[in-house]
Amino acid sequence: MHITSEQRLDDGVRERAFTLGDIPGFLWTPGSASASGPVPLILLGHPTLGLARMYPRLAARARHSAAQGFATATIELPGCGDRPRWHAMEQTRAELRRTLQAGEPVGDELVDALILPLVDKAVPEWQAALDALLALPEIGGPVGYSGGVISIGIRLAAVEPRIAAAGLFAGSYVPRIMFEEARQVTIPLHVLLQWDDEGNDRQAALDLFDAFGAAEKTLEANMGGHTGVPQFAGEAAAQFFTRHLK
Amino acid sequence: MHITSEQRLDDGVRERAFTLGDIPGFLWTPGSASASGPVPLILLGHPTLGLARMYPRLAARARHSAAQGFATATIELPGCGDRPRWHAMEQTRAELRRTLQAGEPVGDELVDALILPLVDKAVPEWQAALDALLALPEIGGPVGYSGGVISIGIRLAAVEPRIAAAGLFAGSYVPRIMFEEARQVTIPLHVLLQWDDEGNDRQAALDLFDAFGAAEKTLEANMGGHTGVPQFAGEAAAQFFTRHLK
Repeated sequence: MHITSEQRLDDGVRERAFTLGDIPGFLWTPGSASASGPVPLILLGHPTLGLARMYPRLAARARHSAAQGFATATIELPGCGDRPRWHAMEQTRAELRRTLQAGEPVGDELVDALILPLVDKAVPEWQAALDALLALPEIGGPVGYSGGVISIGIRLAAVEPRIAAAGLFAGSYVPRIMFEEARQVTIPLHVLLQWDDEGNDRQAALDLFDAFGAAEKTLEANMGGHTGVPQFAGEAAAQFFTRHLK
Repeated sequence: MHITSEQRLDDGVRERAFTLGDIPGFLWTPGSASASGPVPLILLGHPTLGLARMYPRLAARARHSAAQGFATATIELPGCGDRPRWHAMEQTRAELRRTLQAGEPVGDELVDALILPLVDKAVPEWQAALDALLALPEIGGPVGYSGGVISIGIRLAAVEPRIAAAGLFAGSYVPRIMFEEARQVTIPLHVLLQWDDEGNDRQAALDLFDAFGAAEKTLEANMGGHTGVPQFAGEAAAQFFTRHLK
């Protein structure tokens, strides 16, 4: 992990931009007042829009978490932002746009093509990031995963024993096979669902919640569309992490 | 309203038992340290098991609410506890027991017979209790309704303008017609659902949540059966009332 720049945000939060091989990322750690000794880490998941575009929302989540004594980190997803174009992903995304514009249903095959290669490629990268981040003296365990892409969160929660709790956002297409992987997820879960999310299949989200193998899982559904998650829902998710990572 | 007894609980909460006509009830108000001036009121709904049997759980909810500066109150439901037996209700309950023991489905007609007369009789009583409680100098508005029987909460929220927010528990049979009344409910709602509630139809609970006309409504679903609501869910409901009644 190579630190490429560093700054202090207004509230004392330390923000480091880094690269891990050719993958850019960010690490945020609490200001000295909020933390003494190693702090637990939350990995911030995000959609495939690129880190630059997601930065304001990610930094806001990072500052909120820092105020509660959490470090947070995120990395760019494969084929997104400044990372090399990924031809297969570009093609399936173009196919998705065509399908949606034509008002046709998004079939299982397209969902698989959109999500499964992304999960296969991203999850080992997040695990490598975890190796590097946990080697820093100021970062301790346990580790949480927060946000979308929900299939990345499911796979990580299923295969990575260092992830102790996950706050997932049911807002993206979920391949059928991920329902099987969901049964392997036994860590505590907090799942956010936007009830009127235009691009999301509500029944599939409810079925996915049902499929998770966790003994403690909470579904919190709120009104509004994909980007309309209310502030109090963010706070409930934060309390979930405080309960499980502190 | 006639106060029949009064005591201070360990944490300074003032508990008054009262009768309103022939209806027994309880009022809990915060200890002097937690409140100055009139406090908002939460009506504590409960199942048809009788106040004596429900007392420990109701008093625990009351103390938790008092610590956050809320008064709470509850009254006995018609035909329950020490109130006169209600022949029609006894008959439909016996019919429900027979149906469940025979492993037969509980039909719409039986659900209507179980719930609608109860709602028709209980709601005006809760409104009368509200008149009496709001006349006390230590009780101010706004008012919340919390708990089951969910159909009583729906009707109250629909017809009683003094109810400003409702935390409902999706754990009892809901007559079809209540889905129509749910569309009239526009106050903020926080709905708890126990995902594996044996006696509750999960899909009906999700449909009911969908039917509510409120612009702000949250569904919180947790694992476990009817009586297994986790402590953190109670805290989320408390935060909901703090957001809307303070």
